[in-house]
Amino acid sequence: MAYNLAPLQNLIDQFERMPGIGNKTAQRMAFYVLGLTKDEANGFAKAITDAHTKIKQCKICCNLADDELCPICKNETRDKSVICVVEDPRDVAAIERTHEYNGTYHVLHGAISPMDNIGPEQIKIKELLARLNDGAVDEVIMATNPTVEGEATAMYISRLLKPMGITVSRLAYGVPVGADLEYADEVTLSRALEGRSVI
Amino acid sequence: MAYNLAPLQNLIDQFERMPGIGNKTAQRMAFYVLGLTKDEANGFAKAITDAHTKIKQCKICCNLADDELCPICKNETRDKSVICVVEDPRDVAAIERTHEYNGTYHVLHGAISPMDNIGPEQIKIKELLARLNDGAVDEVIMATNPTVEGEATAMYISRLLKPMGITVSRLAYGVPVGADLEYADEVTLSRALEGRSVI
Repeated sequence: MAYNLAPLQNLIDQFERMPGIGNKTAQRMAFYVLGLTKDEANGFAKAITDAHTKIKQCKICCNLADDELCPICKNETRDKSVICVVEDPRDVAAIERTHEYNGTYHVLHGAISPMDNIGPEQIKIKELLARLNDGAVDEVIMATNPTVEGEATAMYISRLLKPMGITVSRLAYGVPVGADLEYADEVTLSRALEGRSVI
Repeated sequence: MAYNLAPLQNLIDQFERMPGIGNKTAQRMAFYVLGLTKDEANGFAKAITDAHTKIKQCKICCNLADDELCPICKNETRDKSVICVVEDPRDVAAIERTHEYNGTYHVLHGAISPMDNIGPEQIKIKELLARLNDGAVDEVIMATNPTVEGEATAMYISRLLKPMGITVSRLAYGVPVGADLEYADEVTLSRALEGRSVI
């Protein structure tokens, strides 16, 4: 850009660093900020620092929390004998939106990926094992992503847990609801055939 | 969203209010902020408040400025006898990118639009007239948007300026360079015919 004031250019650069934001969108966003009232702009800046300082990791499940424990671990009505293991806090939100699951979660904050130098030590597997010591957990549901890394992580954890006598299950693979069979890839379709159930 | 922590939801809401940002993008942006280091997050928040407090309007041309005057009005080499009138500071940046114009600008911050209760008093026409009193300006180029509001504003201003003996010109209408004639709309095409030049 040929001409921009330093504070404005700095703000555009900040927005442009975000995922999925190009230069034009970053400019529009920066001009939107200039058009805010003083209070609104301060509120926006405060929301960023607040989110950053107030949000920590839950001591039990490593999910995002604004307290020692996350709202799910604090909730007395959740079934503490089932743990759903996910890669990312966003996955917790996705499963919560189904309103079908009443157990607890464990957030790994990543998946085993030797290519990126992420081994079992770099993700929250130690913390998961620590939760299983008291024998109160019956089932661990592996809900890592259906990618090579997610699969490897699920396999690794299931091998650790099986000797402890804990049931380890995996999310079902198959064709997504509402999709067209014609467009399903071969791997998904063959997994859907394997996992077929009697109706 | 069924489940989100208050500081995170607040940040998502802030991002979602921006133009062109939907809920999914706002979520990704909020998680990006959570993944920043403390210094980076503070830098981001400071960029917002800085842009808002440091950027003012140039005393002469009403363009954005981080000082009394904007960089263009301060620049001794710019031709002060030509003023290009635009609706928005972004239009200044667009014209600057052409590297073809060496005069000064005047930013109206809007266009006359009776439908939105914006009359000549609500935009910076007074400030433009004040600049023309000393007789140093020979030409005013109307570069308002080619919309009904932009046209009306250009007409209104040209009628004010003509009795003062100042040349008022308008950006040329025509087919955009690189576009396909077949897809040009009728109004643009008939304007391009009207404005044809001998080659």
